[in-house]
Amino acid sequence: MTLDDKWFTEISASSGSAFSLKLTDKVHEEQTPFQLIAIYETATFGTLMVIDDCIMLSDRDNFIYHEMMSHPVLFSHPDPKNVVIIGGGDCGTLREVLKHAGVEKVRQIDIDERVTRLAERYFPDLCDSNHDHRAELQFIDGIQWMADASPGSIDIIIIDSTDPVGPAEGLFGLPFYKNCYRALNDNGLLIQQSESPLIHGHIIKQMYHAFQGAGFSRIATLHFPQCVYPSGWWSATVAAKPGAGGLSDFRIQDALHKPFETDYYNMAIHQAALAVPEFFKRALDNES
Amino acid sequence: MTLDDKWFTEISASSGSAFSLKLTDKVHEEQTPFQLIAIYETATFGTLMVIDDCIMLSDRDNFIYHEMMSHPVLFSHPDPKNVVIIGGGDCGTLREVLKHAGVEKVRQIDIDERVTRLAERYFPDLCDSNHDHRAELQFIDGIQWMADASPGSIDIIIIDSTDPVGPAEGLFGLPFYKNCYRALNDNGLLIQQSESPLIHGHIIKQMYHAFQGAGFSRIATLHFPQCVYPSGWWSATVAAKPGAGGLSDFRIQDALHKPFETDYYNMAIHQAALAVPEFFKRALDNES
Repeated sequence: MTLDDKWFTEISASSGSAFSLKLTDKVHEEQTPFQLIAIYETATFGTLMVIDDCIMLSDRDNFIYHEMMSHPVLFSHPDPKNVVIIGGGDCGTLREVLKHAGVEKVRQIDIDERVTRLAERYFPDLCDSNHDHRAELQFIDGIQWMADASPGSIDIIIIDSTDPVGPAEGLFGLPFYKNCYRALNDNGLLIQQSESPLIHGHIIKQMYHAFQGAGFSRIATLHFPQCVYPSGWWSATVAAKPGAGGLSDFRIQDALHKPFETDYYNMAIHQAALAVPEFFKRALDNES
Repeated sequence: MTLDDKWFTEISASSGSAFSLKLTDKVHEEQTPFQLIAIYETATFGTLMVIDDCIMLSDRDNFIYHEMMSHPVLFSHPDPKNVVIIGGGDCGTLREVLKHAGVEKVRQIDIDERVTRLAERYFPDLCDSNHDHRAELQFIDGIQWMADASPGSIDIIIIDSTDPVGPAEGLFGLPFYKNCYRALNDNGLLIQQSESPLIHGHIIKQMYHAFQGAGFSRIATLHFPQCVYPSGWWSATVAAKPGAGGLSDFRIQDALHKPFETDYYNMAIHQAALAVPEFFKRALDNES
């Protein structure tokens, strides 16, 4: 079978695979100072955002990613009040974080304002909470922001970035993690999207090392499906400061009786996402 | 991006998506009386088998599917001795079932002998156990075989079939399930691959209804990643006879201390695969 020009195809060169979605229209394209953003309408996945030829999100399946980047880590902190999202310009993670009534402030720090402006236009549901009084959107460099953050001032850092190439590369390195460690308070937690367990194991291992090097402990990886990302299987990795519990030590009753709706996350899914496949366990063991 | 002719692409028309693997060689193609089988070498996924333009398996990720089609249901039965695999011609499920020392007999009933002969040549690892004295390979129609099976004679039926179109269509219907029910003994279990939770929910719902219609209860779906299948997220659904426990009621200690190696399955993965995402729960509830 060959695909005609009515498809968007993302080639994952390093894994020798590609994923395509059937298009009905291209509705926007612009080169920002940071990246090339394109918006398409697809036949069956709703609206699609692509940055530098990599699929960022579709209407149909973004709920899984956004819920897994937010609820597990929020329910793992005893009382999260001050949350910072680095990246996350589509505002989907912000919306999920703000479902937690105890959260007092969420700062979203994305370098490229155009991602958010286009999300407001083409993914309005994800931007439902942008005007919540607890939300503060800043369009500046997250690496610099973290270097300048007050020590011990943040409960949870969510690194909702693109892949570790281009503008996001610095968000996967030891200097940035050390600044995150310093900015978190003693029971603070950090979560970062960590690519595919099947095809990017080497990236996840490097992250574990770098988290440890920055002083974090109780590092764990959440696994979840994500249809539009390479291999369809994605992950987020969490690291804890010494005073924090780990991801398995979460507020089970609160998660069971959460007063808001979700489409993927629930208490059982939280526990399930922490199960470690045998090959992944061996890959991490070999490294340590 | 467009793909040149060095890729194999499977278009999932109903979901408006496609998945491609980079090829290095086409090593075999034949039309059998039942289907068109092609074998390729890929750049990064090892050998690839394609039937009627649908990817069946790759070296790189078949371990997940084969382990999830076998170990959860085997560890959910108190003492499985007599197992029947309908389909499964690549022999990967057979190999996993035979890792259980208590199993006395496994019959693999695949209509197309050529699938097995090509697996022996191109996927020799999967066929490691084909000459185990407990294995019996028959190349006949599984639907007819099940209609003729002795009542109450089987502990576990594994339906490891292609999609519910073409030769496998009859393996997704009430008449076949009624024959399975009859052939199983009182604490027997059945498992069937059940497509993608994200894009084939309607098929899974129909399966639940048909299983119930045949008399089965404690129906549950296992979720697992499967990179080469549409959406990258796959499932298998289990149904129990009245005397059987459900999938969550499994031999936890035996699974924890399994005396054989796996690459994906372990006790925690078994439990995790049973977690039901919110959207899936609602979809099934709406149907009942």
